[in-house]
Amino acid sequence: MDNRPLILVTNDDGIYAPGITFLAKIASRFGRIVVVAPDKPQSGMGHAITINSTIRIQKTDYHHAEMEYSCSGTPVDCVKMAVNNLLQKSPDLILSGINHGSNSSINVIYSGTMSAAIEGALEGAPSIGFSLCDYAMEADFTQAEKYICGIIEEALKNKMPKGVCLNVNIPKLKADDFKGVKVVRQARANWVEKFEERKDPYGRNYYWLTGEFVNFEPESTDTDEWALKNGYISVVPTQADLTAHNILKDLNYFEK
Amino acid sequence: MDNRPLILVTNDDGIYAPGITFLAKIASRFGRIVVVAPDKPQSGMGHAITINSTIRIQKTDYHHAEMEYSCSGTPVDCVKMAVNNLLQKSPDLILSGINHGSNSSINVIYSGTMSAAIEGALEGAPSIGFSLCDYAMEADFTQAEKYICGIIEEALKNKMPKGVCLNVNIPKLKADDFKGVKVVRQARANWVEKFEERKDPYGRNYYWLTGEFVNFEPESTDTDEWALKNGYISVVPTQADLTAHNILKDLNYFEK
Repeated sequence: MDNRPLILVTNDDGIYAPGITFLAKIASRFGRIVVVAPDKPQSGMGHAITINSTIRIQKTDYHHAEMEYSCSGTPVDCVKMAVNNLLQKSPDLILSGINHGSNSSINVIYSGTMSAAIEGALEGAPSIGFSLCDYAMEADFTQAEKYICGIIEEALKNKMPKGVCLNVNIPKLKADDFKGVKVVRQARANWVEKFEERKDPYGRNYYWLTGEFVNFEPESTDTDEWALKNGYISVVPTQADLTAHNILKDLNYFEK
Repeated sequence: MDNRPLILVTNDDGIYAPGITFLAKIASRFGRIVVVAPDKPQSGMGHAITINSTIRIQKTDYHHAEMEYSCSGTPVDCVKMAVNNLLQKSPDLILSGINHGSNSSINVIYSGTMSAAIEGALEGAPSIGFSLCDYAMEADFTQAEKYICGIIEEALKNKMPKGVCLNVNIPKLKADDFKGVKVVRQARANWVEKFEERKDPYGRNYYWLTGEFVNFEPESTDTDEWALKNGYISVVPTQADLTAHNILKDLNYFEK
């Protein structure tokens, strides 16, 4: 019997994306791997789940994993499906990614990659979402290989606190130019959107969502944005309690 | 010129749902209203945004608002579209709902209703998501009318802290049975999923996502779950910083 850790690999760019291929290959050095990932790109799906329609899964062998399915649902659906329906035991580690593009700062709430990791943590499994700050399909994931392995190794060795996952973002650098890994907090930032209006061949308007990322605290040195800008891989411990605990007591004017 | 507050109304059950009709009617007592809401049900969409396809909007007049559009996108798209493309000034208040069904506790991260409110707060507008713990389309929203009005009134009167919105959940009770409003935190809870497997007419499997809600801390008296179970309307101040601040210092073994 194979007693190595059971590692579930998923993503939001779809099961055939280069990022998950690279991550599955790395993961297989650390344990038995199972891949359950979306059958098509699901970027920007956030923590969406499929409740108004049905879900299908399809056996595949693209990554030569011990068990492997593409899934018609969202990244969060994939994690739920794997943990609650396909696997006999809870995974020892859930890895999501590697995302093609940044999921630092406020991007965490829009990210299917990170929502899969957050869902993993909610399901009680140590979980890590990896993202490379390079949207290109031909992005070079190998440059950060040493650091990715290091983070997986530490996550397997140390018990992660329950309900917490890691949001790991990797700047687009050459291997020699990384300064190291920094554990930091999510920077306060937002997108200023611009809807690009176009006309379809029938004369009707449609829109593309575009926008510009604005860091509200570029001077703070303890944020993921700062770390990435300064050559570090950022690690943000991430959890799903959205309560604004610090102002709970200030709002008693609502209590009547 | 009409100097009353500008109130944006949205939801995730779609622009024709009874819940938004009721909320728009109430909102119109407090100011000028604009409705931008999904053109179809978008429950469980979480913080999804539309980046891989296009968005369409369609002028309507179902709610007799000052301006009104149905939108092909997600609830978060609706808020972005309204604030960044349709409105000349930032709304004085954003109301999302009233959702048909609970968005308390961990449901907040799956909820399109609450994601619209969180997006509103990110866009800098005071925002409230309302949900009634009754999934029925014929749910009776009038029972809690007095409390809904009270919460809107206080939100307009008091400046809400920037970046924070309210998650308001209403138990399914008769008007006289409400005990009042409680400001509380999000309870630690989760769903234990069960995928119901069925066969389509062609003999292929498909799945429905179902599950059972499990409150991990039923004894705690400062949570939304406790408030709802005990006859109170729960108000949770909600924000989008997912950093697990309390364990930032414990993870330095990742820093190499």
